[in-house]
Amino acid sequence: MPVDSTSTARTRLSAALPKPGSQSALREQNQQRVIAALMSGGPQTQAELSRQTGLSTATVSNIVKVMATTGIVSTAPTTSSGRRALSVILNDNGQVAAGIDIGRRHLRVVLASPNYRVVQEASVALPLGHSAMEGLTAASDLLDSLLENGGISRRALLGAGIGIPGPIDRRTGTVVQGAILPEWVGINIHETFSERLQVPVFIDNDANLGALAQVTWGPHSSVDNLMFMKVGSGIGSGLVLNGALYYGNVGVTGELGHTTINEHGVVCRCGNRGCLETVASTSTMIELLSRGSNETVDTQRIIDWALAGDTAALRVIDDAGVAIGRALAHTANLINPETIVIGGPLTSLGDILLEPIRRGLARHAVPIIGETTNVCMSSLGDRAEALGAAAVVLAQPGLSPRLASSA
Amino acid sequence: MPVDSTSTARTRLSAALPKPGSQSALREQNQQRVIAALMSGGPQTQAELSRQTGLSTATVSNIVKVMATTGIVSTAPTTSSGRRALSVILNDNGQVAAGIDIGRRHLRVVLASPNYRVVQEASVALPLGHSAMEGLTAASDLLDSLLENGGISRRALLGAGIGIPGPIDRRTGTVVQGAILPEWVGINIHETFSERLQVPVFIDNDANLGALAQVTWGPHSSVDNLMFMKVGSGIGSGLVLNGALYYGNVGVTGELGHTTINEHGVVCRCGNRGCLETVASTSTMIELLSRGSNETVDTQRIIDWALAGDTAALRVIDDAGVAIGRALAHTANLINPETIVIGGPLTSLGDILLEPIRRGLARHAVPIIGETTNVCMSSLGDRAEALGAAAVVLAQPGLSPRLASSA
Repeated sequence: MPVDSTSTARTRLSAALPKPGSQSALREQNQQRVIAALMSGGPQTQAELSRQTGLSTATVSNIVKVMATTGIVSTAPTTSSGRRALSVILNDNGQVAAGIDIGRRHLRVVLASPNYRVVQEASVALPLGHSAMEGLTAASDLLDSLLENGGISRRALLGAGIGIPGPIDRRTGTVVQGAILPEWVGINIHETFSERLQVPVFIDNDANLGALAQVTWGPHSSVDNLMFMKVGSGIGSGLVLNGALYYGNVGVTGELGHTTINEHGVVCRCGNRGCLETVASTSTMIELLSRGSNETVDTQRIIDWALAGDTAALRVIDDAGVAIGRALAHTANLINPETIVIGGPLTSLGDILLEPIRRGLARHAVPIIGETTNVCMSSLGDRAEALGAAAVVLAQPGLSPRLASSA
Repeated sequence: MPVDSTSTARTRLSAALPKPGSQSALREQNQQRVIAALMSGGPQTQAELSRQTGLSTATVSNIVKVMATTGIVSTAPTTSSGRRALSVILNDNGQVAAGIDIGRRHLRVVLASPNYRVVQEASVALPLGHSAMEGLTAASDLLDSLLENGGISRRALLGAGIGIPGPIDRRTGTVVQGAILPEWVGINIHETFSERLQVPVFIDNDANLGALAQVTWGPHSSVDNLMFMKVGSGIGSGLVLNGALYYGNVGVTGELGHTTINEHGVVCRCGNRGCLETVASTSTMIELLSRGSNETVDTQRIIDWALAGDTAALRVIDDAGVAIGRALAHTANLINPETIVIGGPLTSLGDILLEPIRRGLARHAVPIIGETTNVCMSSLGDRAEALGAAAVVLAQPGLSPRLASSA
């Protein structure tokens, strides 16, 4: 059924998003914790799940009951410490959630089962400056080919999460001005994708999805306050605060790329001057290193040079890292995260980028913040955003059973 | 019973603070909403409370039941739209919560009833550089005299909330290095105050309490994401995110005073250079305006000069305002608050300070953030922190009934 009015799309968008702090948001967080424990620890009893998650046994029992009804888990009798108990097992019922990550130059689609196993995955290059419809068509085609490859019926598709590299105004469901994808500004992505894909669609900023992936698929499932910072041609971040994605007032958060680093610096695409993006994005690094080179410089070339010890590349990365660390210091002074995860195309640089970031953070943060904030690279690489997009679908309460009955 | 071990104090501190995102934190937030609705709207039915708060009627009914048991509200039969209903009324049972605000140079104590009425209030000057014990003794004496003035038995004292102008490490309950009150660094305030006052004690950073006051006593009870920024001899802020005070990883948040404004500026007490505090605190304004003056300059003198149109005072305030606005832009880009409330001794400057702050915010924020973020002065004046401290006590679930039975 096509969604043909903006107001309907708005209603569906907001209906799909539990109000932060609400009972349903809390239930969803708790369910995510139980699923994360089952993913990392395999089948286990409710008592073990309670110990691993910190949730009460009553809460775990309720969550398991609901997930058993919706087919996410099944239970089997076992014994634990000589007593009869129930072993809880994540199911694989053939259904899948799609996670779609649309970048400025790339597209990635993953299909994940309700037990958080990736069953199909592919990525392709997109032409720079592609229109919204081109991106949508490419995403839809890649999704279809993955379903076909996996022998998965379209009816087994629970929904699609879609990550966009730009802030989204949650009041209207549109990409706001200043986005990395200027071709998408003002388009109601939710409406457009819902019409095309014919399944429930959940749109979010890619950095938000990267943050969600860290606490769902990554090694940070026990972290309540985490920041995921994506350093690429743009710089943005997603925040998990008190265990849930944080959206603020209109949904535009984590815009760290527009922290003023040099008040009289070059003009940024946002209209200000000397923003972090103008000194630390991969576009800036490419520009700086192109001046002294006859070769065509791209991000991978910079990484190769740096790993080979090239002085100019190392210096450009070092300066960028210190500036990023300074912006992160202000962020950490404000929201005191436990962990900051760096993602994007530069993660393979490892300590070459991490060390100056940590140096900039320590230099500019209040001492106790500098000492207690953990900064690390994303272990999910380029996949974080697409994995987070699939996680959004899998976290929707009530989505599985409704479709399961029609599948 | 004196608390005589650090570990006991730690346990009690953390026991007093519901884990963010937990069921109890959520219940507390919901109860706060119902109380705020009753404070602003007077006696009303549960259906009306449900409409005003956005909570379900079942949730409102449960909250009212609990609050009726603990004596916070009483209920009386009424009719609404021709049907029988219960009118819910905030009680005043003679019990009081103390809110204590200890500043660098001042002390304020308020006594508030469980229906959020201020029954006694006083403030006194403290000598600059007072020791923790001097501050404590003054607070204890002022509290005793307020109880005596009001004819209130000590047994009717539910507890004391205490605001300190410095970050508190919630892992240890101590004021951390870099605090405005260097004399208090490392002291376990919770333990010290608990011993002296012999009632349950709740310590928090003063800016956090100011933020809580805005959504409890102020005109912002419907705001879910609010920042309270205190501009005085120090600059700090408190965050209400998703409707609750936000504490982050170790409890040190909102340290906006240490945002780097001028990388090569003067050295700040935190050890960095050119922090916002070095360009926009009242101490800096006093220093700048003392150079050209034979008179002794203090904050009130600067306010008087500015209100009378003095060019130098207006310029110093304008520069400070723009710098504050720049730091707020980075904050708003990150957490997208609906409202930023400015508090502290400069609130009487009104638009003289607000206008440059808004200008700095608009200049440095992402456009949609600049356009949608509301910046205003605190209408609670110097009282915000003490009122917030009393609100912390009144929000403690289970505090009232335990003491009520012994009172």
